[in-house]
Amino acid sequence: MTTLLVLFRRPEGGIEAVEAFEQAYAESHLPLIADTPGLRSLRVRRVSEALGGASDLVIVAEMGFDDRAALDAALASDPMRAAGRNLRTIAPGLATMLVLEDAPGLVPGGWR
Amino acid sequence: MTTLLVLFRRPEGGIEAVEAFEQAYAESHLPLIADTPGLRSLRVRRVSEALGGASDLVIVAEMGFDDRAALDAALASDPMRAAGRNLRTIAPGLATMLVLEDAPGLVPGGWR
Repeated sequence: MTTLLVLFRRPEGGIEAVEAFEQAYAESHLPLIADTPGLRSLRVRRVSEALGGASDLVIVAEMGFDDRAALDAALASDPMRAAGRNLRTIAPGLATMLVLEDAPGLVPGGWR
Repeated sequence: MTTLLVLFRRPEGGIEAVEAFEQAYAESHLPLIADTPGLRSLRVRRVSEALGGASDLVIVAEMGFDDRAALDAALASDPMRAAGRNLRTIAPGLATMLVLEDAPGLVPGGWR
């Protein structure tokens, strides 16, 4: 499993700006993501609190693919390219996109 | 489901420092996490690439709990308190801890 993890920073403009971003994200961005070929899972979560310090992150989105080749094919697809252009409109400079790979050697037995 | 997401920044000292952190994390930290009461899932992944920009993040750990009350109970438990002290030794100032809550209204139908 290869995961694309997207961390969204808080837009300037207070709670109204966050709500406007969330609405644009749900209405214009996620439908493109949902059409991405090879997408195996999609999970969007809100940051409700940062423990032991502050954080400027507000939304965390996680997209799962079979492997890195499937992610690369998805990134080259029309829906994902449109999603990338959309992101530059609705959240310019606010997204960090990380490719994650499982690290089985790091996890105690019994946990995935 | 309430998730504790921990983002680890790269320690100074190059690849040797990252490997030393990973070893300490696997040997001294994760066994404490695995003993945490109420823990429903534990997933540790490496950041293999940052797309469209740089990132100083190297490891992403995700701990799942039934709800916020279960997370709070876990945070107050002996294993988690020991894990917090351990973290200040093996990764001082390098961890961002976020509480995530599902945002069902943000996800297109058919995806969790």
